[in-house]
Amino acid sequence: MTMRIINLDHISSNPLLPEVKEAMIAAIREDYHNPSSQHKRGETAAEILEKSRETVAGLINASNPKEVVFTSGGTESVNHAVKGAALANAKKGKHIITSNIEHNAVIRSIRRLKGLGYTVTSLDVDEYGRVNPADVADAITDETILVSIMHSNNETGTIQPIEEIAKITRQKKVIFHTDAVDSVGVVPIDVQNMGVDLLSFASNPFYGPTGVGGLYVRRGTMVWPLIDGGVQENNKRGGTENLIGIIGMAAAAKIAKKKLPEWLAHLEKLKSKLINDLPKHIDEYIINTPPESSLPNLLSVSIKHIEGESVMLMLDDDDIAVSTRSACATGSLRASHVLISIGLSHADAQGTLVLTLGQDCGEDLARYLAIIPKNLKRLNLY
Amino acid sequence: MTMRIINLDHISSNPLLPEVKEAMIAAIREDYHNPSSQHKRGETAAEILEKSRETVAGLINASNPKEVVFTSGGTESVNHAVKGAALANAKKGKHIITSNIEHNAVIRSIRRLKGLGYTVTSLDVDEYGRVNPADVADAITDETILVSIMHSNNETGTIQPIEEIAKITRQKKVIFHTDAVDSVGVVPIDVQNMGVDLLSFASNPFYGPTGVGGLYVRRGTMVWPLIDGGVQENNKRGGTENLIGIIGMAAAAKIAKKKLPEWLAHLEKLKSKLINDLPKHIDEYIINTPPESSLPNLLSVSIKHIEGESVMLMLDDDDIAVSTRSACATGSLRASHVLISIGLSHADAQGTLVLTLGQDCGEDLARYLAIIPKNLKRLNLY
Repeated sequence: MTMRIINLDHISSNPLLPEVKEAMIAAIREDYHNPSSQHKRGETAAEILEKSRETVAGLINASNPKEVVFTSGGTESVNHAVKGAALANAKKGKHIITSNIEHNAVIRSIRRLKGLGYTVTSLDVDEYGRVNPADVADAITDETILVSIMHSNNETGTIQPIEEIAKITRQKKVIFHTDAVDSVGVVPIDVQNMGVDLLSFASNPFYGPTGVGGLYVRRGTMVWPLIDGGVQENNKRGGTENLIGIIGMAAAAKIAKKKLPEWLAHLEKLKSKLINDLPKHIDEYIINTPPESSLPNLLSVSIKHIEGESVMLMLDDDDIAVSTRSACATGSLRASHVLISIGLSHADAQGTLVLTLGQDCGEDLARYLAIIPKNLKRLNLY
Repeated sequence: MTMRIINLDHISSNPLLPEVKEAMIAAIREDYHNPSSQHKRGETAAEILEKSRETVAGLINASNPKEVVFTSGGTESVNHAVKGAALANAKKGKHIITSNIEHNAVIRSIRRLKGLGYTVTSLDVDEYGRVNPADVADAITDETILVSIMHSNNETGTIQPIEEIAKITRQKKVIFHTDAVDSVGVVPIDVQNMGVDLLSFASNPFYGPTGVGGLYVRRGTMVWPLIDGGVQENNKRGGTENLIGIIGMAAAAKIAKKKLPEWLAHLEKLKSKLINDLPKHIDEYIINTPPESSLPNLLSVSIKHIEGESVMLMLDDDDIAVSTRSACATGSLRASHVLISIGLSHADAQGTLVLTLGQDCGEDLARYLAIIPKNLKRLNLY
């Protein structure tokens, strides 16, 4: 029996849509052959693969489905984009621009490149985690080959002024990658309007399976494959495809494209309610999420005088799942680099809860919040 | 309705075992949370992930499950091993030894490294595709940091003398990687007996899902991650796991471990029958697969005076799926580098069929063979 657990940690894991489950189960039963095989069974699989690509490309409004490379998730997409662009363009220069609040996928990819002789400018952000596009313009040199700034931040929900930055990178002819893993399928994303060259995304934020994602590669953008091998994915990524996962992602993308406005409205309503209810339950806190231009499903709250990890574990006893920071950073005891970068003290950073909502969250959200003070009292701080 | 198609192209795609389908469908229905999340739901997912790792580690007899890194398949595993070992050990040297008949995953990974200043010695093979261990010993210099020789070849079925090569690399303290993608779960593989440091494998050869695999990393082997990001996979591979796929691979590994002797016996019987029946149907041909030390499920036959691709397409009309070469090489018109390396003429290489068998192949295999001459006659060559 599954326990009834309240999930306020959707950013770590969204449940699969019923239609996604159905599509994946049907794919498992069907036993598709290898899309690269040239006989009939291979062709059937290839048709489904390419149809899935069209659907996924539609979610981000790519002009050509071939601009979408299927990957094993957001982290692979980011590695492919950052390392692939840097290595492919080394002859032009070895300077990369990024921000101080990127996901570890970007930070650690860039760290590898530093070991290979690349130099990096990492931009400061304001108290809401925003990058100033003028800073990007100032940082670009003749050696700059890549700008990598995330679309939305997974700890604060901050959405960056990507279109403005893209205007600058286009003018300067520098490749622009954005990590949009927590944005695609959550807020409207249109790669044509945004003007980015590379965009990383994953399937789970829009209720598709984990371990599947995509990289948008604008036609003409020079990027080495991360995974070299066969000629799959238009020669951009070797390896037999995770077709079951891709079919699941496509099923999710189809629904996300249709329901996005409805989903957005639901999340915005819940988030407002959450923000309004907070003072009833908690005395001293800081909201780290910007009031405007932020993810509709994320609220980062630093509660004064507490240790977020303890609150998380106590809420867990009451069957409420929350997160103190990115699930990917588990095991690290240091305060989040994102929260320090927006100017929080170490104490406030440690007292931070990241509450993330989903379509399965109901209007009774405040009910769960009511449990928080009970727990805080257990900590003898309230 | 699915057509009844005879699959003699198992190396491109094996059907999922019923138990694998069941396990994956149950996982889809269960909606596991993120294994990196620290609350109860995360812990449940983490337990299943680690239990899966134990099962998979058992199939290759790894001494510690932590030596197994889950990947998105064989190609990622190979890239991780080859690029990761080369980059992590660059200070010791930049020389790599490989063979002329490796899979494109190895060849192209090494080609990338050449662009970064690495040098490569690629060893010749004999008429059955075998590497001479003495050649490996001769090629090792003070600069050598990596030897990458495949365990079994995907076009000829040749199994290499990996244990003998490992004795040499261990003595010379050089990292040894073997691409065992078509071996693990097909023939007994014991990483302890073999003495390799890195071993790549995939789930589909033992009837698990595509897009899932693993890399065995012997404790103490210095390898950079290919996919940098979070601390997943003991800090060796970032990104939220494809848990549904991993659960499928573990279900397959559990059965493969138990049934391997039975599976082997079935395949060996079928393969003998196929070899014995060949002269009844085809006049002039060369068998490229070594009579000993070869995969039990693979038979490579070069038929004289024909074009393999045409035969493949004609058999396809009769609902029989065969392959002319690696599915990963689709789209390339050049003759297979493997077949040229074992000394075939271009004409013979073009006339090659790779027949690969599976547990679902019955005793009536010869029945399908009987269709071949019909097709060859259509080509007006017989």
